[in-house]
Amino acid sequence: MKSLTSTPKSDGFRMPGEFEPHAGTYIIWPQRPDNWRLGGKMAQHTFVEVAKAIARFEPVTVAVNYDQYANARHMLPENIRVVEISNNDSWMRDCGPTFVTNGSEIRGVDWEFNSWGGLVDGLYFPWDKDDSLAQKVCEIERVDSYRTKGFILEGGSIHVDGEGTLVTTEECLLSEGRNSHLTKEEIESTLKEYLNLEKIIWLKRGIYLDETNGHVDNIFSFVKPGEAILAWTEDKSDPQYEICQECLEILERESDAKGRKIKIHKLMLPKPVLITKEESEGVDAVEGTLPRQEGDRLAASYANFYIVNGAIIFPRLGDANDDNAAKTLKEAFPDREIIGIDAREILLGGGNIHCITQQIPAVKR
Amino acid sequence: MKSLTSTPKSDGFRMPGEFEPHAGTYIIWPQRPDNWRLGGKMAQHTFVEVAKAIARFEPVTVAVNYDQYANARHMLPENIRVVEISNNDSWMRDCGPTFVTNGSEIRGVDWEFNSWGGLVDGLYFPWDKDDSLAQKVCEIERVDSYRTKGFILEGGSIHVDGEGTLVTTEECLLSEGRNSHLTKEEIESTLKEYLNLEKIIWLKRGIYLDETNGHVDNIFSFVKPGEAILAWTEDKSDPQYEICQECLEILERESDAKGRKIKIHKLMLPKPVLITKEESEGVDAVEGTLPRQEGDRLAASYANFYIVNGAIIFPRLGDANDDNAAKTLKEAFPDREIIGIDAREILLGGGNIHCITQQIPAVKR
Repeated sequence: MKSLTSTPKSDGFRMPGEFEPHAGTYIIWPQRPDNWRLGGKMAQHTFVEVAKAIARFEPVTVAVNYDQYANARHMLPENIRVVEISNNDSWMRDCGPTFVTNGSEIRGVDWEFNSWGGLVDGLYFPWDKDDSLAQKVCEIERVDSYRTKGFILEGGSIHVDGEGTLVTTEECLLSEGRNSHLTKEEIESTLKEYLNLEKIIWLKRGIYLDETNGHVDNIFSFVKPGEAILAWTEDKSDPQYEICQECLEILERESDAKGRKIKIHKLMLPKPVLITKEESEGVDAVEGTLPRQEGDRLAASYANFYIVNGAIIFPRLGDANDDNAAKTLKEAFPDREIIGIDAREILLGGGNIHCITQQIPAVKR
Repeated sequence: MKSLTSTPKSDGFRMPGEFEPHAGTYIIWPQRPDNWRLGGKMAQHTFVEVAKAIARFEPVTVAVNYDQYANARHMLPENIRVVEISNNDSWMRDCGPTFVTNGSEIRGVDWEFNSWGGLVDGLYFPWDKDDSLAQKVCEIERVDSYRTKGFILEGGSIHVDGEGTLVTTEECLLSEGRNSHLTKEEIESTLKEYLNLEKIIWLKRGIYLDETNGHVDNIFSFVKPGEAILAWTEDKSDPQYEICQECLEILERESDAKGRKIKIHKLMLPKPVLITKEESEGVDAVEGTLPRQEGDRLAASYANFYIVNGAIIFPRLGDANDDNAAKTLKEAFPDREIIGIDAREILLGGGNIHCITQQIPAVKR
């Protein structure tokens, strides 16, 4: 398929909101033993549950390394498509393509990927397979793609309303390990060209201690244009408190591309979630990969949910707020089924349900 | 996708003739240095020419190992889709799925593959990636498949007329390295179930010294029901002479599933083609892989052509009969464009254009 040198904006393509209709979802199969405990076996079961939940609503494709193909095909139900794509880890949101559309055709944006910070503060080395994954997804889908040269981005660091507004965090997009050769204005201008935007709202920081440098998708999500979810805590002793206050203040002050104020639903966070001794001991120690140490606080947040056709798939975290999260999500998305998946095993790997998924927008062909 | 335990015949699916309309073609990228000279670089150029010729008439997908993906993507034109599927070598006809259809749906037959004879006289070891390739093609195409357990077959060892007749060779299908645990009747009955047939015509032998144990697709091809091509020589001093006479005798004696006599077009073979010293020296010597020695006679035949929508892609072999072949093919296929590709580099690897391709039948969805 074609590698395009123009930009989506100049070609009349935009990134739809996640809440718009999907043609399907991609996921990557987890396996690396220096990130997932017990050789990925626990995470694999959870990924299967997520894939099954999504497949009730839209077609799911799972990308797998050669050596795990037979196992993934065996563990996944038959209605889920399994394809071979070499990968370094399993964060489809971040290394997969961001799809844009003009209403009748889909194209992919194939951002440069450097493992959340490259040689500055990246999470593993090397990341070459992940960086070449987006193109391979586009080939399978028979869609042309735009490759950004000299511009690093992960899909989890942005959320859009599909009507010209993007929300991101300075903590991530202005981090030293990504595009430090570009000014904030140049980064804005690149995002506007590749996602067809008019307005970028900059939150300062994401969830406390989030190893992605504060990806927005762990703290914030659009419900629809003019309405959004914000992760929240009332615990003033938690460093997270100040971050949430700061986000709300910015969101209340700003308006979106259409001049609307954004209505905010507060989604109460769980209590701090720490890695146990047993969990830590199940992970291989490898130089160059972020360690998983006993007592480390995880970036646990219900905001890391995924919107599919007709449902919300959200992480249950074994916390008293699990049910509150379902309730808040039902209030925000009254027409969708709210499905919770026990997702501690995904959280242990450094992200959650939104991070492991990537939607393909539906178009009229 | 589903792995079915019923059979195509019981489900109302049949294998169409290659001359029926295609939805597209799959090819595998060549690279193994113990089969293709100079690390596959020469063959890769020829495969690109074949892919480009086919892509003028129908969509082409090329399956590639991870380590050659970027190179294949670079060498192939943008209108050709490139997907990652691990493989041991590049004979899509033989390890790919055989597609069957009921007119509105496609399914794959995923034959067991053992490298043309397994531990008896197989051509390389191991062959596990090739054996798992057919299923992966079916997954990408979102089609369910029938896996034959305990039945070895390569797609190049059969040709069908789409109306109940299959032609094959005893040399191959009754070889010790394939289904020697089955009787000829049991093999017939399996073929009839999986391809929905009533009549099997058994030729004795294929092209002289063909390392596939005489695949039928190197000596014979259907033009349409009731009409076929047979490779031919008038050189009585050539061991090939007796084989061709024998084939013709059988074809003249037999009738097809509909009771028709099959009209035969004789396709004159090239003079014997031998491996040169330079060609031999370009191939890595590896224990367990069939060697390519100077002076070895290759199984050169124009019958190893491929029928696409609107054209015939046939191998030119640098012989005086190249143009005769084009002429004979034009007489047999007057409504199709006849395209010759210089294919010596494919022949050096042990097959030709038909061997490296696999068609997906077109259906009304």
